[in-house]
Amino acid sequence: MSQLPHDQKLDALLASAARVFAARGYHETSMRDLATETGTSLSGLYYYVKSKEELLFLIQDRNFAAVVAELEEALDGVTDPVRQLERFIENHLEFFASHMAEMKVLSHEALALTGDFLARVNARKQAYTLLLMDILARLEGTNGPAHANRRVAAYALFGMMNWIYNWYDPLGDLDVRLLSQNMTRLFLGGYVGHPVAESALPHTTAG
Amino acid sequence: MSQLPHDQKLDALLASAARVFAARGYHETSMRDLATETGTSLSGLYYYVKSKEELLFLIQDRNFAAVVAELEEALDGVTDPVRQLERFIENHLEFFASHMAEMKVLSHEALALTGDFLARVNARKQAYTLLLMDILARLEGTNGPAHANRRVAAYALFGMMNWIYNWYDPLGDLDVRLLSQNMTRLFLGGYVGHPVAESALPHTTAG
Repeated sequence: MSQLPHDQKLDALLASAARVFAARGYHETSMRDLATETGTSLSGLYYYVKSKEELLFLIQDRNFAAVVAELEEALDGVTDPVRQLERFIENHLEFFASHMAEMKVLSHEALALTGDFLARVNARKQAYTLLLMDILARLEGTNGPAHANRRVAAYALFGMMNWIYNWYDPLGDLDVRLLSQNMTRLFLGGYVGHPVAESALPHTTAG
Repeated sequence: MSQLPHDQKLDALLASAARVFAARGYHETSMRDLATETGTSLSGLYYYVKSKEELLFLIQDRNFAAVVAELEEALDGVTDPVRQLERFIENHLEFFASHMAEMKVLSHEALALTGDFLARVNARKQAYTLLLMDILARLEGTNGPAHANRRVAAYALFGMMNWIYNWYDPLGDLDVRLLSQNMTRLFLGGYVGHPVAESALPHTTAG
């Protein structure tokens, strides 16, 4: 990867490291293993990060930053809370269906970070959760009342989306758009009731 | 634990081992660590299991067996699919809210098992998933049509329930019964629409 600028090289390194962590676990993987499996020299690795923990932090931090940046773009100019929720779910699922290794690392190694690294990732998670809860609050205003507690609903939605790394095959017969439409219908209908124009959100009968 | 019969001693050992695996990770924990942290001698450990993997298998296998046995009891004589779903969710959440360490081990170390151990746990998972999908099929018959694909809905429900080990505090202000009622409303309303007698399932506004 010697032709790429620093940031792109770092991103490529983080993507490789995420695959290794996802397959073997963070604690079981040494910097030496990472060097071997990512085809980088050990000194090359230490040029980018000071420690294995910084590598884990960067995987988590940059992926959260990316999912939020893409979400902000997806929400630009969208004012209807139903559409905002649709975009939120679609963005989250599309991002993670194409970053399954990162998603597993984010889920499984959340507690492997310590100190400032942990605090910074937690701040990102909290901001992202608040963003969802704001959409839910607006949804209650336009389509309410809510049929379930807002905080439970927000974590239930994260749960149904994040659990996909246990069962979903992005290359299988259910594409991520259909997955997203199904989860939107399921969540939206449960939270504030199914909208009248149901045909706007088609669902699959496959599987 | 020398006064207890073999099975109770094994259960106590499995519960301690689950806590250690949940806190440190399966791969990072040696049999020697387990002996130290569970207050058992190393030879005592090997009296119960032949290997660390057998210990992990027994944690997964016996907990799945227990949740299914309790479910069968909870479903006994219940014929209305809405009530069956309620019981399914309540049983799953009550079991895992009181076995958070086991739940984390079941979620995180699913792929640490190999060969026959893996096959046997997977068979239990599959049977449990089919049990849920049967309830969903009956629910479609009485309260349908479904608003989402059945397989997506089943895994979405497992996701929302299993994700609780990331955020839910069983000792906090949301008791597991309220959590269960909220998730039932959310899922049921999304899947087949909210039942007419909504007041039958109260929901909290806390949080």
